[in-house]
Amino acid sequence: MSASEQASDGAGDAPLFRVGLLGHGTVGAAFAVLLEERADEIARFNGQRPVISGILTRSRGNFEEIMAGADLLVELIGGIEPAREYLLTAMRAGMDVVSANKQLLSQHGEELFETAREHGVRLRFEAAVAGVVPVVRVLEESLSATPIERIHGIVNGTTNFILTEMAAGSSYAEALTEAQRIGYAEADPSDDVSGRDAAAKMAILARLAFGTPVHLNDVHYEGIEHLHTDDMEFARELGLGLKLIGTAERRHGGLSVRVHPAFLYAGHPLAGVSGPFNAVTLESEPITEITLSGPGAGGRQTASAVLGDVVSVMTGGARPPAPPLALPLIEDVESAFYLHLDVADEPGVLASVTKVLGEHGVSIKSVVQRGMGEHARLVMITHPVLESRLGEAIERLGDFEFLRSTPRTIRVIEEEFV
Amino acid sequence: MSASEQASDGAGDAPLFRVGLLGHGTVGAAFAVLLEERADEIARFNGQRPVISGILTRSRGNFEEIMAGADLLVELIGGIEPAREYLLTAMRAGMDVVSANKQLLSQHGEELFETAREHGVRLRFEAAVAGVVPVVRVLEESLSATPIERIHGIVNGTTNFILTEMAAGSSYAEALTEAQRIGYAEADPSDDVSGRDAAAKMAILARLAFGTPVHLNDVHYEGIEHLHTDDMEFARELGLGLKLIGTAERRHGGLSVRVHPAFLYAGHPLAGVSGPFNAVTLESEPITEITLSGPGAGGRQTASAVLGDVVSVMTGGARPPAPPLALPLIEDVESAFYLHLDVADEPGVLASVTKVLGEHGVSIKSVVQRGMGEHARLVMITHPVLESRLGEAIERLGDFEFLRSTPRTIRVIEEEFV
Repeated sequence: MSASEQASDGAGDAPLFRVGLLGHGTVGAAFAVLLEERADEIARFNGQRPVISGILTRSRGNFEEIMAGADLLVELIGGIEPAREYLLTAMRAGMDVVSANKQLLSQHGEELFETAREHGVRLRFEAAVAGVVPVVRVLEESLSATPIERIHGIVNGTTNFILTEMAAGSSYAEALTEAQRIGYAEADPSDDVSGRDAAAKMAILARLAFGTPVHLNDVHYEGIEHLHTDDMEFARELGLGLKLIGTAERRHGGLSVRVHPAFLYAGHPLAGVSGPFNAVTLESEPITEITLSGPGAGGRQTASAVLGDVVSVMTGGARPPAPPLALPLIEDVESAFYLHLDVADEPGVLASVTKVLGEHGVSIKSVVQRGMGEHARLVMITHPVLESRLGEAIERLGDFEFLRSTPRTIRVIEEEFV
Repeated sequence: MSASEQASDGAGDAPLFRVGLLGHGTVGAAFAVLLEERADEIARFNGQRPVISGILTRSRGNFEEIMAGADLLVELIGGIEPAREYLLTAMRAGMDVVSANKQLLSQHGEELFETAREHGVRLRFEAAVAGVVPVVRVLEESLSATPIERIHGIVNGTTNFILTEMAAGSSYAEALTEAQRIGYAEADPSDDVSGRDAAAKMAILARLAFGTPVHLNDVHYEGIEHLHTDDMEFARELGLGLKLIGTAERRHGGLSVRVHPAFLYAGHPLAGVSGPFNAVTLESEPITEITLSGPGAGGRQTASAVLGDVVSVMTGGARPPAPPLALPLIEDVESAFYLHLDVADEPGVLASVTKVLGEHGVSIKSVVQRGMGEHARLVMITHPVLESRLGEAIERLGDFEFLRSTPRTIRVIEEEFV
């Protein structure tokens, strides 16, 4: 028994709660340290003292032995296999599990939920979404009786950092390099900048909020690689900020889940979220809206979310997941758009453009036109329009000879509740 | 059985969970409606169907009968008695309870917690603090193993609305009248504008976050009645916004809990919280910081928080409260200050003022001086200083004949984590 245990008002005598740890990378190592630091305090209010009873890494440990000696398994390996097999095996043996594995949950979530339900065990995964921001807990518990209408989330800290740098004047390439230098972006940043990481998290959140199975492959996503600094400058003139936004919302009796760059008005609760932070806004008629924000990553932060899950299992809190509902997934939804056209600076251009837009039901909310020598930039904000209808209009615009480059579009999110 | 029950996939056949409701005012009535609306969905995922089994008001119902016919009591009467006696009686009989009663919890919290612990029952009170913002749940569960260092909260929507109006140019009186017209402020607004309502909420949050009993009387509070519009104007020049901030934080081995107007730098997570919204920032080394925000009041919003508590008891989530710790309460703490002096516009004034401040260890971070005809305004931001030391310095300044009116001070909160 260590000195810190002896100094703990008898907490050192508390019965042990044995945690088997799978994976000992950045988060796994931070989790083991944090659990040891907080064991006395947890024993004080919970009556049981958590200890790491075994650790499995690629080079040491035996899964069966660790499972046999544990009250709970914590999976921090990441990736699909062998994490999936370990979790299924443990739950089939009646063991509660905690995981931070967004890949696995977004691609094999139903299999995991179904197994947890069948065997009456808890499956907790706060750290899989939005870092330390307790959105999973709030959705599963505080709001379990609340009909969620819409979730907007900044759920990838790397891209939010890059966009914050770009808003301050950096190019995309400069901002990415800076993110890699600080350690916010990996050497191969494609999972983050493509929007795929955010899409996995939105699939998980959508499943929680709407009870409907959503696979990563069901989530339409666009990344930030093709954004132009001058789009951000124009947007600033229009009072807008640019974020990579994940959206999951009820639409037309179904569910739409997607990730794309989007402009936000200054009053939107997510507009002020900068740097590597994450934030999620939950909208529902009885509650209006709740916004949760905090750091999106970091080994110790993520470990803290994992430890919160462990404590909730110790306390007897969480319940097995509910059986799924089945809302249809909607592909084509209405959005307001920012539309950027690079055109020849000659008479009649604006008239021709607005005529085509009007024929496709695209209604214009604001326009900025600016001459740039022999060509001009035409920037418009549209009223909400079906994305397919705007796509058709843009295809038609491609026929005009006065067009100098491919039109660019970015969605605009208008504040509806506040 | 109603049509909606029959249409619920068999949820109408679920065993009933009987909720006895004490109080049928704005929140009580909204709660009864919301529970009925959501009963099918709760039955679907929870296996039990909640129903209101009895309602006690001043004019109808019998407490003993309602208690005998209920699985859980929800107390929405407000005030101290008879709410206190009802809750104690129910818990002593082994019954779980839910309350939204901030007065009671901030003045008799230990008695309630002790009774809940002794009888092994749950006592939930999400709606007593920060409206629908799930800060109680997050502190009790997600962060139960996390050592909180500091809480900053905007926990009174009425005052935040008034300050938002004042920031847009209204006088205090105009803003208060507008708040009363919309229904955000009561005819007698003193509980809100004096800071007392916020102090009650901070006492409850401090008890949760730091495990130390904090009575409303232990919380030092100042209100917004004496704020000047020109303080807000000066602050804007310095890049600051003004909010009524509740603070609970570890200081010098103890705990400081207080409520006062405070200036925030633009980057602070609470700086952008406007109108009748509430928000709470929780700071802790392992998590850095989390901010939660949402509507601070409204019958249906508060009812939604109460319903979340009911569902958590049905699910078996919450545990009885932990036994208290006993951090000493610290009165005198260090703060940065905004200091406003109205002085004669004559030579040597600034030198005299800074000499006195320096003698009391008050170090100046920035100064703005502006002539106003025959007198001048001197506005300073200090570095952090013990409040008692600044108080002594201001007393000394009172001796100077060049002083034209009483010095005004407002605390300044600097962002430390991000």
